[in-house]
Amino acid sequence: MLNATGRATVKQKSRVVIIGGGFGGLTATQELRRAEVAITLIDRTNHHVFQPLLYQVATAALSPADIAAPLRATLRSQRNVRIVMEDVMTIDRQRRAVILSDETNLSFDYLIVAPGSRHFYFGKDDWETFAPGLKTLADALEIRDRLLLSFECAVQLPDTPAARKHLTYVVVGGGATGVEVAGALAEIARQAIVRDFPGIQPDDFRIILLEGEDRVLSAYPEELSDKAMQFLKELGVTVHLKTRVTDVTRDGVYAGKTLLETANVIWAAGNQASPLLRTLNVPLDAQRRVIVRPDLTIPEESRVFVIGDAACAYDARRHPLPGLAPVAMQQARYVARVIAQSIPQERRKPFVYRDWGSMTTIGRAKAIAQIGTLRFAGVTAWLLWSFVHIFFLIGFRNRLRVMSEWIWYYFTSKPGAQLIYWKVRKAPSSQPEKHTAA
Amino acid sequence: MLNATGRATVKQKSRVVIIGGGFGGLTATQELRRAEVAITLIDRTNHHVFQPLLYQVATAALSPADIAAPLRATLRSQRNVRIVMEDVMTIDRQRRAVILSDETNLSFDYLIVAPGSRHFYFGKDDWETFAPGLKTLADALEIRDRLLLSFECAVQLPDTPAARKHLTYVVVGGGATGVEVAGALAEIARQAIVRDFPGIQPDDFRIILLEGEDRVLSAYPEELSDKAMQFLKELGVTVHLKTRVTDVTRDGVYAGKTLLETANVIWAAGNQASPLLRTLNVPLDAQRRVIVRPDLTIPEESRVFVIGDAACAYDARRHPLPGLAPVAMQQARYVARVIAQSIPQERRKPFVYRDWGSMTTIGRAKAIAQIGTLRFAGVTAWLLWSFVHIFFLIGFRNRLRVMSEWIWYYFTSKPGAQLIYWKVRKAPSSQPEKHTAA
Repeated sequence: MLNATGRATVKQKSRVVIIGGGFGGLTATQELRRAEVAITLIDRTNHHVFQPLLYQVATAALSPADIAAPLRATLRSQRNVRIVMEDVMTIDRQRRAVILSDETNLSFDYLIVAPGSRHFYFGKDDWETFAPGLKTLADALEIRDRLLLSFECAVQLPDTPAARKHLTYVVVGGGATGVEVAGALAEIARQAIVRDFPGIQPDDFRIILLEGEDRVLSAYPEELSDKAMQFLKELGVTVHLKTRVTDVTRDGVYAGKTLLETANVIWAAGNQASPLLRTLNVPLDAQRRVIVRPDLTIPEESRVFVIGDAACAYDARRHPLPGLAPVAMQQARYVARVIAQSIPQERRKPFVYRDWGSMTTIGRAKAIAQIGTLRFAGVTAWLLWSFVHIFFLIGFRNRLRVMSEWIWYYFTSKPGAQLIYWKVRKAPSSQPEKHTAA
Repeated sequence: MLNATGRATVKQKSRVVIIGGGFGGLTATQELRRAEVAITLIDRTNHHVFQPLLYQVATAALSPADIAAPLRATLRSQRNVRIVMEDVMTIDRQRRAVILSDETNLSFDYLIVAPGSRHFYFGKDDWETFAPGLKTLADALEIRDRLLLSFECAVQLPDTPAARKHLTYVVVGGGATGVEVAGALAEIARQAIVRDFPGIQPDDFRIILLEGEDRVLSAYPEELSDKAMQFLKELGVTVHLKTRVTDVTRDGVYAGKTLLETANVIWAAGNQASPLLRTLNVPLDAQRRVIVRPDLTIPEESRVFVIGDAACAYDARRHPLPGLAPVAMQQARYVARVIAQSIPQERRKPFVYRDWGSMTTIGRAKAIAQIGTLRFAGVTAWLLWSFVHIFFLIGFRNRLRVMSEWIWYYFTSKPGAQLIYWKVRKAPSSQPEKHTAA
């Protein structure tokens, strides 16, 4: 824009547009807080979600407000950012603009694309109706409503096939999310639910975890996968390895030709990056992620960066980096530095991911962790996991809330968030059969 | 049912069916905990809501889990109750049975009907789309989503008519709910929202309270109504008295022929008891409540009781009792005693409501209260109000949660629950006009 009065003397601030308020987008925004730039942060929701604990909302252990923080509140004191709550429709590289769903155009000098990913049903999108995934607060609340309704249905039909269907839970995918969901379900079902639903016995529950590979948590060393298997077994979770889902219907999940009858399927198997990335017109990998260059830019652009779950970046051994919060956050810091210091492309050092380790929890007081060459399993890993997750939560209040919920739950086994918000219209399959109690 | 083995010797327990898990139904259930009866408690949700604080969820000050408790958790240790989460379709007096939406029949020896009320639009049901009421958690979350979205829309369109429409809030009804909502809105808007939405000034907000009578809170003495008016004025709420709403549309609220342009209407004007009551085939009053006898039974039945918002009961001066939690709870205790002691109708003393007083809060540190002949206004009343509301909350955890939220908010003015769960599809009227930020 021409600015007759100031243009010659005052340097126009660089316009940085950031798409997505997840770990990548939010960290990039915060890292640029002292930079001489004008940031626009776009998200379709008004909050940042601490995704690693989302499964605890889905399993009724935590409330949404415990693990989410409004972006505006989090960024309240940062003066150089404008927040726009809207969907992004297109990225127009030619015009160097982002086009929102209300047709607003946002021009940029720098663009950070961090829209994350959604669950992917291997092209069978109709499975989603019966097998919701877990990426947003709305997803988590949907799963929570379904689970709690399922118990309500089962308790009205003791010892019927319909009740057994309602008390069978199939989790598809043996990665971190799948293992955490299955573990939390087993725990909540056998410890908390049984007390509240007279007539349901701990052994009435069946929790089944399906994994296509020959072990769960294949990102970890085999020794820790074995430990995780053992913990799952102790919790009563049945794990089927080398098992591929062929269909998901109203009746349940087909593993090969076997039907696992269930009213509750949770999808933790596949991810696909945001469809927005297609509008960049650059090569994508199998998960539809942008194959970025060593400085996290896209081909032919030195000022368009893709980070987090939306990016396919490689480590030193040419392995793609995993879709984890620490990867997104380190990438965000790298990109923020490049922008703040206006480093020209030819002088940028490649992004290097520093792996501090990873950890996964499987029920109360059970977790596995790997930190460098150190490996932990059991209570130590769980304490470590609890500490790290509380530490990295956004906001002092959320930390306090989650910590007190966990301490409470640890000592009482009473989960804190068993509310059904929206009475889900019961599908025909889950309708209790007619019976007369009189 | 015939029971050949035990019937002659063991007295069959009385079957008590209770419809509704609000203050009336839950209290009746709990009061019967030691009685030799088999209780079935039916509710369409799985939780009890502490309705007096629902407006704080709607205005993003509290989270749903702070003021609601799962019925199963609350009644966990009570052995003589079965909980059914279902809608009641009909009460069949002839067959002495309650028929649920899944066509289950529940026979009863005693029936306590406590389904509460919904908001009433004076026959104009299409107003509900634009003017949601506030009775359930789902209502409160719907209003919260709309409010927060409205700020998001306004901030994108500074100084336009659309922004002004989004920053105008019309509350219809100057009773306790209306005054509390208006006060809370004024406070949250001017203190918290303004800090998070750069470009919105405190004076950009217009909060309008419409009341048909010549004063707000007409259940209180005039002196306290005047105090409440003064508090509302201090908070910047404009009150229009003797004003009747003639229409509610996409554009706003018509008061007489004047259009108050707004995208945010909250309905706190009229109540109507549950339509279920019609199936009793007994006389109803103008609000469709059952006109009960002095022992809270319905005509011609000595074992069918109606309590709470669903009942029109009279005090000694033949005034109908107000729709308040203490009324419902005292009625519940009275009915529970009649049932537990199997008091025949001719020996029942009439129900007498013991009025301990009432109180209404208007923003932080402002409230009015009346206890017998004592009248309070200001900080004392507010401390009293806070104490009483925390004391009567269901459950130790909820008390702790609400108290800590309030203390936090008192000192920081940062409300704790500004999350939009479901991205509400924006109505055409609230769509920001197209503009180019580039």
